[in-house]
Amino acid sequence: MVSERARLLAAQGTPPIAAAHFRAQARPYHPELRPDGYLNLGTAEHRLAWDLLEPILTRPRVVTAEDSHYGLVYGTADLRERTADLLTRTRSVLFEAEDLIVVSGASVALDIAAAVICDPGDAIIVPAPYYSGFDADLTGRSEARLVQAPGTPETDFRISAAAIADAAGRAKASGLRPRALALCSPTNPLGQVHTPQELHDVLAVAAEHDLDVIADEIYANGVFGPTAFTGAYGLPDSPLPPERVHTVWGFAKDFGVSGLKVGVLHTTGEPARTAARELAYFAPVSTDTQALVCSLLADTAWADAFLAASRSRLRESYLHLAGLLDGLGIPYAPAEAGFSVWADLRRGLPRPGFAGEDLLWRALIDQARVSVLPGAVFHSPEPGWFRICHPTDPEIVAEAVKRIGRVLEATGRGDVTAVAAQC
Amino acid sequence: MVSERARLLAAQGTPPIAAAHFRAQARPYHPELRPDGYLNLGTAEHRLAWDLLEPILTRPRVVTAEDSHYGLVYGTADLRERTADLLTRTRSVLFEAEDLIVVSGASVALDIAAAVICDPGDAIIVPAPYYSGFDADLTGRSEARLVQAPGTPETDFRISAAAIADAAGRAKASGLRPRALALCSPTNPLGQVHTPQELHDVLAVAAEHDLDVIADEIYANGVFGPTAFTGAYGLPDSPLPPERVHTVWGFAKDFGVSGLKVGVLHTTGEPARTAARELAYFAPVSTDTQALVCSLLADTAWADAFLAASRSRLRESYLHLAGLLDGLGIPYAPAEAGFSVWADLRRGLPRPGFAGEDLLWRALIDQARVSVLPGAVFHSPEPGWFRICHPTDPEIVAEAVKRIGRVLEATGRGDVTAVAAQC
Repeated sequence: MVSERARLLAAQGTPPIAAAHFRAQARPYHPELRPDGYLNLGTAEHRLAWDLLEPILTRPRVVTAEDSHYGLVYGTADLRERTADLLTRTRSVLFEAEDLIVVSGASVALDIAAAVICDPGDAIIVPAPYYSGFDADLTGRSEARLVQAPGTPETDFRISAAAIADAAGRAKASGLRPRALALCSPTNPLGQVHTPQELHDVLAVAAEHDLDVIADEIYANGVFGPTAFTGAYGLPDSPLPPERVHTVWGFAKDFGVSGLKVGVLHTTGEPARTAARELAYFAPVSTDTQALVCSLLADTAWADAFLAASRSRLRESYLHLAGLLDGLGIPYAPAEAGFSVWADLRRGLPRPGFAGEDLLWRALIDQARVSVLPGAVFHSPEPGWFRICHPTDPEIVAEAVKRIGRVLEATGRGDVTAVAAQC
Repeated sequence: MVSERARLLAAQGTPPIAAAHFRAQARPYHPELRPDGYLNLGTAEHRLAWDLLEPILTRPRVVTAEDSHYGLVYGTADLRERTADLLTRTRSVLFEAEDLIVVSGASVALDIAAAVICDPGDAIIVPAPYYSGFDADLTGRSEARLVQAPGTPETDFRISAAAIADAAGRAKASGLRPRALALCSPTNPLGQVHTPQELHDVLAVAAEHDLDVIADEIYANGVFGPTAFTGAYGLPDSPLPPERVHTVWGFAKDFGVSGLKVGVLHTTGEPARTAARELAYFAPVSTDTQALVCSLLADTAWADAFLAASRSRLRESYLHLAGLLDGLGIPYAPAEAGFSVWADLRRGLPRPGFAGEDLLWRALIDQARVSVLPGAVFHSPEPGWFRICHPTDPEIVAEAVKRIGRVLEATGRGDVTAVAAQC
């Protein structure tokens, strides 16, 4: 006997994003040893910082008996204080350790944020395209529903206060109560940095429609373009009271340690904060790992230098990919942050619509052995866009783009079966 | 705006068990430095194995770039294989790595087990007294309700098939659908080891009432008495099919590393296993910590010797506490396993019932500065019983029991206010 919940979970199967990741990782490309292996530009991981991290992660650790015993479920005081200090230092807005809840990954932080704001059936407005994890993360425990506020190719899919207002209206018209707005900032998949004006407009719409804001700012320190990062919390002249902005951050992206699963929720109001602490009970982080990430923050000079070096490498990596795409005449939305480029592969669609996008995706992964994710995964308002991640070995990126170019030539002629011969 | 869920969570506040733990840990007793500090025998932690663990936990670790990146959310293949091997080796029943789901603590493993079996409003039968964490762990995500099957002092509160059948009947009569039976084995707070016959009888009742069994066997390797541990999974001639037994285990108790928060769920049927893997997404364990606990299992000779030494120290620690209680004429249920003794402090109740038990508890913690947990926390069917944990510094245990004795003298005379003067 299993629950109805278990039947639904089992029936939905592994999300394609996870399946593609593990398929690509299981047989990775190597120029000599496995030339027919997979090139994984599908996973948003920072693989360009290991030389900087290795000395810290592999050095002898100080572990005491106390470290091996129970700690506060929402994070050790040490980690919360150091994290608050980092957030305060990098954003010029005061973050207090008491307002931080440390949990096993940013996905869980999103899950908890949604659960403390939304009742089952409430609506969360999400500008689209959006990070596909939101589908599970924002609805898992909350049982809320996502309502999209789609962007348009004409404005490079930038967030739009009008689209959010429209989505809130549509949610109400269909009998849902709009309760929150989920922002990704900088955005994934697009790598855009919201300007203070954009944030102000969007928070004004949130205030008008009585929405809390869940700000997923996990890429906050991954900005390499001209627009400085601005957080939703502490926005000057914010139209929304501070306790209605719930910020999610983590170590996975900014510190390149996705495997350590350390996420942080910042929330300042009551009873939201107390409720979030209680829910952290179901996703605590090992005291050992908390001590390890503390050691990444303990030397602030090292941490600041690491983040600067990381941003510089991301910029270089982005420019490399952008140059390769330019060389093949493949358009893309310009990025200022993050790990990916949102590329317009419409000319390679073997047939119109998302069915064509799916065929192109399969040609890329099945035949060319390139893992990139199709726009449908990110609820793209328009078919034919793909997310290409770049912070990995530049030779892998170059080989992948070469193969993508060959696939587009074949599939653009409607010739899906010829792809295998091309690659 | 917050959800109804958040209001309820915030209103319930910190559970007394957690509050007492942190209060006691914040100002620990020291014979010279802080003679008025707290003696914490309230937390079920193994504090007698650090000398054995320290060399493993503090030695230089091998961490690769791959360790810092995404792993399978339900546990690395390495950890699941080594854990399956340990379970198979110590129980003489085959456990497969593919049937294990690794999550951030045994509480989460219980939460997931209940969620894949029960729909909201279903009933889970629980023999009482029981581990107080069940209240949150088995109902958090499942929204199931617990129905108690109380034991009696005459039989030392041992589990009873008749009491379970009766509870299932009561659940049905009140309109609930009994869906599962949760067993703690060895038991907490009592430290009893179920005999094969007891398990057989109980599983027969489960089969008769169409119940799955959730077996919390986190103390499986903490047996120091004459009755060998028998797991619910793989019981010879089991009346219940194997896929209806869901086993929870973890490293917190048997390996004395409660802070590492590594729990394991073993479930063999579909779609339960797939659904449980999906839920593990919301409580993954750091790859770094997974590698660390792997290193506890990698040298099987070391692991077996550690577990043997741990059992021997638990036995000694138990006998020490039992001797102290005997010396004061305080009765208790005999234990064969685990970290605690279920002591009968009824003679110290300043007034009858659970109100008296609560007064005695407050006298103990507020005035005598001894943290032990009252039976009400464990849903004891009878007031006046307390759980006293022993695997810590024997001097702490001796001092605590001395103070308990003094408190009982005063409170037994109904003289609660005089306690302070006595201690």
